[in-house]
Amino acid sequence: MNLFEKHQPELMKAISAVHKREFYAHFPEMPSASNYGESANDSGKANFTAMLSKNFEGLLQSGQKKFAGEEQSPYTLKPLGVNYPVNEPQEIISYSEKAFLQWKNTSPADRAGILMEALEKIKHKFFEIAYSTMHTTGQAFMMSFQASGPHANDRALEAIALGYEEQTRFPDNAIWDKPMGKINVTLKKKWKIIPRGIGLVIGCSTFPVWNSVPGIFANLITGNSTIVKPHPASVLPIAIVVIEIQKTLADNGFNPDICFLTSDTSENLISKKLCENPSVKLIDFTGGPVFGEYVESLKNKIIFTEKAGVNSAIIDSVNDLNLVMQNLAFSLSLYSGQMCTAPQNIFIPEEGVNNNGKKISYAETVTSLINSIKGLTTHPKMGFATLGAVQNENILNRIKEATDTGLKILLNSEKVTNPEFPESRTVSPVLLEADANKDKEIFSKEWFGPISMVVKTKNSEESIELAKELSFKKGALSCAAYSTDNSMIEKIETEMTSAGAPVSFNLTGPIWVNQHAGFSDFHVTGCNPAGNASFTNPEFILKRFSLVGVRIPA
Amino acid sequence: MNLFEKHQPELMKAISAVHKREFYAHFPEMPSASNYGESANDSGKANFTAMLSKNFEGLLQSGQKKFAGEEQSPYTLKPLGVNYPVNEPQEIISYSEKAFLQWKNTSPADRAGILMEALEKIKHKFFEIAYSTMHTTGQAFMMSFQASGPHANDRALEAIALGYEEQTRFPDNAIWDKPMGKINVTLKKKWKIIPRGIGLVIGCSTFPVWNSVPGIFANLITGNSTIVKPHPASVLPIAIVVIEIQKTLADNGFNPDICFLTSDTSENLISKKLCENPSVKLIDFTGGPVFGEYVESLKNKIIFTEKAGVNSAIIDSVNDLNLVMQNLAFSLSLYSGQMCTAPQNIFIPEEGVNNNGKKISYAETVTSLINSIKGLTTHPKMGFATLGAVQNENILNRIKEATDTGLKILLNSEKVTNPEFPESRTVSPVLLEADANKDKEIFSKEWFGPISMVVKTKNSEESIELAKELSFKKGALSCAAYSTDNSMIEKIETEMTSAGAPVSFNLTGPIWVNQHAGFSDFHVTGCNPAGNASFTNPEFILKRFSLVGVRIPA
Repeated sequence: MNLFEKHQPELMKAISAVHKREFYAHFPEMPSASNYGESANDSGKANFTAMLSKNFEGLLQSGQKKFAGEEQSPYTLKPLGVNYPVNEPQEIISYSEKAFLQWKNTSPADRAGILMEALEKIKHKFFEIAYSTMHTTGQAFMMSFQASGPHANDRALEAIALGYEEQTRFPDNAIWDKPMGKINVTLKKKWKIIPRGIGLVIGCSTFPVWNSVPGIFANLITGNSTIVKPHPASVLPIAIVVIEIQKTLADNGFNPDICFLTSDTSENLISKKLCENPSVKLIDFTGGPVFGEYVESLKNKIIFTEKAGVNSAIIDSVNDLNLVMQNLAFSLSLYSGQMCTAPQNIFIPEEGVNNNGKKISYAETVTSLINSIKGLTTHPKMGFATLGAVQNENILNRIKEATDTGLKILLNSEKVTNPEFPESRTVSPVLLEADANKDKEIFSKEWFGPISMVVKTKNSEESIELAKELSFKKGALSCAAYSTDNSMIEKIETEMTSAGAPVSFNLTGPIWVNQHAGFSDFHVTGCNPAGNASFTNPEFILKRFSLVGVRIPA
Repeated sequence: MNLFEKHQPELMKAISAVHKREFYAHFPEMPSASNYGESANDSGKANFTAMLSKNFEGLLQSGQKKFAGEEQSPYTLKPLGVNYPVNEPQEIISYSEKAFLQWKNTSPADRAGILMEALEKIKHKFFEIAYSTMHTTGQAFMMSFQASGPHANDRALEAIALGYEEQTRFPDNAIWDKPMGKINVTLKKKWKIIPRGIGLVIGCSTFPVWNSVPGIFANLITGNSTIVKPHPASVLPIAIVVIEIQKTLADNGFNPDICFLTSDTSENLISKKLCENPSVKLIDFTGGPVFGEYVESLKNKIIFTEKAGVNSAIIDSVNDLNLVMQNLAFSLSLYSGQMCTAPQNIFIPEEGVNNNGKKISYAETVTSLINSIKGLTTHPKMGFATLGAVQNENILNRIKEATDTGLKILLNSEKVTNPEFPESRTVSPVLLEADANKDKEIFSKEWFGPISMVVKTKNSEESIELAKELSFKKGALSCAAYSTDNSMIEKIETEMTSAGAPVSFNLTGPIWVNQHAGFSDFHVTGCNPAGNASFTNPEFILKRFSLVGVRIPA
């Protein structure tokens, strides 16, 4: 049985899930023994530890001669000491070009089989990927496991499913029989899938797996060879993923360079050189707006970006203010606000908020938020487990910068202790208060990290107006909105979606605006400055190959 | 019965045709009385004549105050004297922005109904569109009728069909029910179709309808308001189309500015101003590479281009040399080589060509081509009817430029008489002979118009190598190949499609490489420099709108 036949049932389920957009998960999200086996956690942790302080082993790719690395754990503040192969851009390109010649001639079905097999192999590495994610990104263990493990694999599976479907959606041949009066002209036609060539996937330091695998698997399913270029601060988690892809390729007679890991260091960054190489036809980029706009400006390339935005929460009216504020407090504390979907600005009308029929003043509303954040971040177990750690020092500096703006500090950022990692770079979020008019310039900036602002507005109309304007001008990847008034819900929905911001209404309990689920939520809409791509809109797949026709008389 | 219900059966047929890619035509291509009625031709001609020498009437759009026009008939060399409304770019944008607010809130089904109704109205104008096309582009009557009438309408219908399908492909709502241990989190989700805003469609002088309607209808079906900006030399045919769209919009209570015609003059071109306006989110461009590359370089826009390329014919071996050369002669003479799909370079090996088992020398092969061109262009009825007229003087100058290159002239360009239009700018094609090595710089240029070159190569391998390189570097929209050898057919197919050139093998009789049929052939592959778009790959639709999610607890 070949790999396509082996995985066809799950592939068909995944394609069906893409079309239903109901809840679907192929890889279980809880890191429990029942899901992953009794010893998975322990052996994953041991495997992670064994990888430290040496050259990274297990890659099957060409040219592993020079090694370098500079990762540091946000939990211990110590270097991981893992060194990855580094190569000159032209060398990388030539490996990738050669590998492409083999991969482009593989059928979409065979590619799907191999890639799904790779996902199964990756599944057995979820725990080492989780510990690697923890100690590079600063995510807490649970998020590290879920985001880099099952959720990432599900996003990859979604890309495979849609990639397979798009490549088989039109017939690959047809008889074209045109009546022309007394005669017919009959042509045999076929259409060939022509991949673009080399795809480059540039990762970010905070979500090195989740944000990279959609581009990697979208490239691979459509026949492009792929260069994986992680952020130098977060290489290990995706390097483990690449090993498993390479193993699967090699086991099936393919050149492992089809998926090539390349690393660089802060002193010798190679992303721009790779981006500008004419053989690189596709670029997937996740990261900051400055580099993102550089990538988007490159000519004669197909570009997919996920940058950043200024996300809003709009508080109009609620059924239970405390539940609302607990939910919001969690959203902005989760991984210390280092999610591209975390709310930054919380718009609250100066006239206060209707709470289950009773008017609550602005001050009381703000107090409820302050207390919710405090309650969460000072909780001896939930606090550090929610916050994780701050990925790098620049983000701590940004907190300082925010408190220096002159905005009123509603809640200061405090050191939070993680009993397991006393050195952990863990702090509670700072909460500032801004005036809708006077402080517009300040809250219109993106403050990536544990920095949130309550913006006092005249009324909900002004809240919506500002949130919409920010989405149009700066981009937004999420909008949390709270209203019990149907006409207000409709207004928020219309205005915010017109600005390309997905809206989540009235979330309380264990579901948060930050979360975008595979097979259901399109992550990034591609229609505001937060990014031009969308996981996984079919367009994310289609630009990676062309359909080229061949005609011959029948 | 609403318009969607009225047209649903044809819409479903068109969607099915898009997926089968067999022969399908909704609008009959022959301008016969049985298809279009006894009086259609006469009244179309009369209507065309009645439009001449005055301000263009019938548009329902805003701001018709100033008028200008500069069209000239390639058949009479006299101005048409039709003046079209001209407006300042900012005025056009504000009309279009206002119209967008209404159109974006219309359902895809309602949009499909209105647009299909518009196609039915356009059908009743096919003859006046044909005469307008003739007297602006220089196409002969039959091509004018087919390309601007039924074939264009079929391409528009294809865009509507795929546009409707893409917008209804995923559910617009779902219940997302996630098991989380003891509880379930249940969300009601919906996804909104968010059009981009204003789309600008810039036309060319040679195919003002066929090349513009895919973009116009793709914009409109996806809810974008559309500014139609034809080439100042060829406004009338598409202006008639716009009237019918506007009428259908107005008849159904919509703002006719949803599809706005704007004109300019050579002295005061406005395309760049429109392109650079931040409200213009989508640009469809057909025309020359220089402006096309400018358009492609614009930031924060979705760009679809169809530029030009250097198309090749590869002669390896044949079954009947004369039939082959007759077919090729027709392809390069049809509309005087002013089709973006016309072959320019005919690669013939110096060792000659195998003709049904018998070797024919290079010289004999070339002679057969020369005789075929002569036979066609000097034919008293077929000659002028195939050639049509040269659209503008620059193209005549280019013939002069080509004959001044020093290449051997195999067949000179001669004046061809059109008995109905003695002033007609009609000439036979020039055929030059180039050496594969020595003259590479010359034949690697695009020589738009009735200019072809026989390129003498060492062998078919060299022919393929050159044709492939030209497609990669300069772009190609077609490749005509002739071979009776299966391994050579496979080689040509592999190499040329890898360079994004569609290949037609062994065409003889009444079917030519120039023709790309709606519902079957993807026109332009989007993967070589000839253009980044493809009629009608789903990607041509998808980038015109976003899917934006809304979630609320169930």
